[in-house]
Amino acid sequence: MTRTHAEHAELALLIEVAGTPKPGNVDRHRDHENLRFEHFLAGAVGASEGLRAAASGAPVGEAFETAVAGMANQRGGNTQFGCLLLLVPLVRAAAADELTREGVREVCAATTVADAAGFYRAFDHVDVAVAEPPEEMEPLDVRRGSDAVPALEERGMTLADVLARSEGDGNAAEWRAGFPRTFREAERLLDDDGPVTDRAARAFLRLLAETEDGFVRTTAGEAAAREATERARACLAGREDPEDLAAEFVDRGINPGTTADITCAALYVALERGLSV
Amino acid sequence: MTRTHAEHAELALLIEVAGTPKPGNVDRHRDHENLRFEHFLAGAVGASEGLRAAASGAPVGEAFETAVAGMANQRGGNTQFGCLLLLVPLVRAAAADELTREGVREVCAATTVADAAGFYRAFDHVDVAVAEPPEEMEPLDVRRGSDAVPALEERGMTLADVLARSEGDGNAAEWRAGFPRTFREAERLLDDDGPVTDRAARAFLRLLAETEDGFVRTTAGEAAAREATERARACLAGREDPEDLAAEFVDRGINPGTTADITCAALYVALERGLSV
Repeated sequence: MTRTHAEHAELALLIEVAGTPKPGNVDRHRDHENLRFEHFLAGAVGASEGLRAAASGAPVGEAFETAVAGMANQRGGNTQFGCLLLLVPLVRAAAADELTREGVREVCAATTVADAAGFYRAFDHVDVAVAEPPEEMEPLDVRRGSDAVPALEERGMTLADVLARSEGDGNAAEWRAGFPRTFREAERLLDDDGPVTDRAARAFLRLLAETEDGFVRTTAGEAAAREATERARACLAGREDPEDLAAEFVDRGINPGTTADITCAALYVALERGLSV
Repeated sequence: MTRTHAEHAELALLIEVAGTPKPGNVDRHRDHENLRFEHFLAGAVGASEGLRAAASGAPVGEAFETAVAGMANQRGGNTQFGCLLLLVPLVRAAAADELTREGVREVCAATTVADAAGFYRAFDHVDVAVAEPPEEMEPLDVRRGSDAVPALEERGMTLADVLARSEGDGNAAEWRAGFPRTFREAERLLDDDGPVTDRAARAFLRLLAETEDGFVRTTAGEAAAREATERARACLAGREDPEDLAAEFVDRGINPGTTADITCAALYVALERGLSV
């Protein structure tokens, strides 16, 4: 028996949250006050139906909305919205036997206005911290959820169009560029050794050291985003203990969520490419 | 969106392993040398197809074999065989809208020789530590796996018959008696408060304090089984710290696996009855 694409994706969600230390994020050893490990377990289980839909070829927007609605069925709030935004097109690409940068780029390019509507409807299920949109995009503020769908249809914007305009969002940047960080980190995960949860924690640190986290920028400001990346570099260079940093960032509410999303996406690609558990 | 029966069962598998401290078992804070937390995550994800089969009314033996084959698709070996032996009939009962002791008793009583064959075939997928059978049962030693199926068919034994002869096995005892410990502990989980993973850890200690663990008896001997129960009682009475006991039991290889199975089954029933995550 081999794992299905949807099972690989669900397992990636679980391994991502189990990896420790992941400074600032919920992990196997740390909870936030109202967002705990078990909320991520329930989020992963709840997302599975949408992930199976994606693997069966359901439209990206519809599969994403189903996955988010299932994920949101727990009391922690937004656990894995960003992860799912990356996983759904990757699972679609894998199901088409084309899990490559080019393959996922095609899936993203083929999205429609209906997919964009599914994406907006997903915001009805859960509160997601996002940056203020530029003024001309206000009618399309994602926080409007399904209320923004008429404006979306009027402008004829596809999901790829919407994400092309989401500047500063690290997940949207992956969509726009054919998932470069995801695929690069997947190879590093495969080249690494030891238990997969330890590999996940190291991937998280590498990704954070490499690029400032968009979620930290939105929720804690520019300076915090810069600091998080500098201190991840210090951890990688052995100048700082990531366990101490993890405790400090949880206390200070510095939560590199986008980095966790990309870690999860990279784990998924690595699992599909033979990372063994 | 509400969680399906199969999702509740998968979530019960995940919450069970995340609960800490659970002296002697893998939990959120402890691994065994070759059996780690991520193996349980992969086991739970892999079991999900068999759990969905059970919820759709597939025969108990077939659903169980499918669940075990999926669970075994990771490198840790047997992670959740015993949990699944309890979950599959419970999920069947829930799907028939009769998740009560009487309902699950009926599911068990209705099992056939084909269900028994599925149970034996499940042993082909994974090594399970079991006690030596009595001499007259040797042709039906479960460790023969599918090789025992002809003997089984010749004797016309149903799965309920097989488990009725598995003396000393705590999971078989649940099957024989209509899951008394499972349903009692589910009510205690619902009456408890705080995060579900903490409730799971307390349920594990209560169950271990109440009854000696069959898996410890098989793998570490009578004295160890007696000691594990006595020391769980000491933890509940506040005379011993369960964190220290957890470290000690992992070191000594005292692994109350049957108690974990019943904890998982009780979590499933509690989730179905409204335990909120």
